[in-house]
Amino acid sequence: MSFGGVGISPGNVAVYHGSCNVRAAERKVRIAELVLRVLILGLGVLAAALIGFDSEVKVIFSITKKAKFTDMKSLVFLVIVNGIVATYSLVQAVRCIVGMIRGSILFSKPLAWIIFSGDQVMAYLILAAVAAAAQSSVIGRFGQPELQWMKTCGLFEKFCNQIGEGIASSVVVSLCTVMLSCISAYSLFRLYGGNKGKSNSRW
Amino acid sequence: MSFGGVGISPGNVAVYHGSCNVRAAERKVRIAELVLRVLILGLGVLAAALIGFDSEVKVIFSITKKAKFTDMKSLVFLVIVNGIVATYSLVQAVRCIVGMIRGSILFSKPLAWIIFSGDQVMAYLILAAVAAAAQSSVIGRFGQPELQWMKTCGLFEKFCNQIGEGIASSVVVSLCTVMLSCISAYSLFRLYGGNKGKSNSRW
Repeated sequence: MSFGGVGISPGNVAVYHGSCNVRAAERKVRIAELVLRVLILGLGVLAAALIGFDSEVKVIFSITKKAKFTDMKSLVFLVIVNGIVATYSLVQAVRCIVGMIRGSILFSKPLAWIIFSGDQVMAYLILAAVAAAAQSSVIGRFGQPELQWMKTCGLFEKFCNQIGEGIASSVVVSLCTVMLSCISAYSLFRLYGGNKGKSNSRW
Repeated sequence: MSFGGVGISPGNVAVYHGSCNVRAAERKVRIAELVLRVLILGLGVLAAALIGFDSEVKVIFSITKKAKFTDMKSLVFLVIVNGIVATYSLVQAVRCIVGMIRGSILFSKPLAWIIFSGDQVMAYLILAAVAAAAQSSVIGRFGQPELQWMKTCGLFEKFCNQIGEGIASSVVVSLCTVMLSCISAYSLFRLYGGNKGKSNSRW
């Protein structure tokens, strides 16, 4: 059975062997996916390194004060999440490369579900971590006078700037994961579009 | 042209007129969507009300102190986002009901793209707002001693509990939006599965 160049083989597995147009478009999607995954890997590691290795020491009236990322739980969470997302992207990038080297793209529904679920979890995880870290950092930068939470960035300017760069990098990572989750949703749910009479459990 | 009960009519519009099985499954998906949208509407309004109308006054050594949600920018953001998400859900719920009353489900790619994009934006928006508000509230509850940010919930216990209920309600809203974004991704991308030779711009 074939729909739009997608042949459904027994065991719910689709092998793409359609026209040149379809193959070229399929290759473009795969390349976009790979580029996004490599970007996430690189920027995720960069963000984790920028935040994780950030520290600044100041001496005020002979009292030594050191700022480090572990002072703020949300930054620790962001470093951990960046690490998880980068590792996941590395695994997925390897899968992409293997798929592209093989040439013929083998795609099964269970695998598509795993990739879709993984990408969704990563997107929501990194977005939540970025939002929490950004919120803490805004308080750190501007303070929250109503609650007597004073800004700390006046003292640790260099430390705060580097944290800001790490968060900016994480924002780009989260945008990439959002785009990837759309690609994997497309890759999964189009398998449900033309599966005519193959299975009763198509929902 | 028909794939799995989906007829593609001119103008890129698909009308569902397939077997009873497909119609029953389609109805289940539509009911699930409607239930989720009504849940989001109800819980979003509840969360906004719980947070927005929360306040507590304490008198300490003849000094009156009042806690209100506007003291924390992230709570203001959460109230606004809950309002946006609830309003969006109301509009979408009406669309669902109209679609169900009509009986035959008319589904176009542009409409599916609008719903998918809207659901995605809502899911990421409410998740970011919940994460930021949760982060502020955790600092409010436990403090951040390393930065001399003292906890405020010891003094305003009732206020903090009500904020916690509002955030819990928002968490359920965000889970519902995540499920909805999966449903709308399914509704959109399955349209790309069986569109054989209809258009060259299927990617």
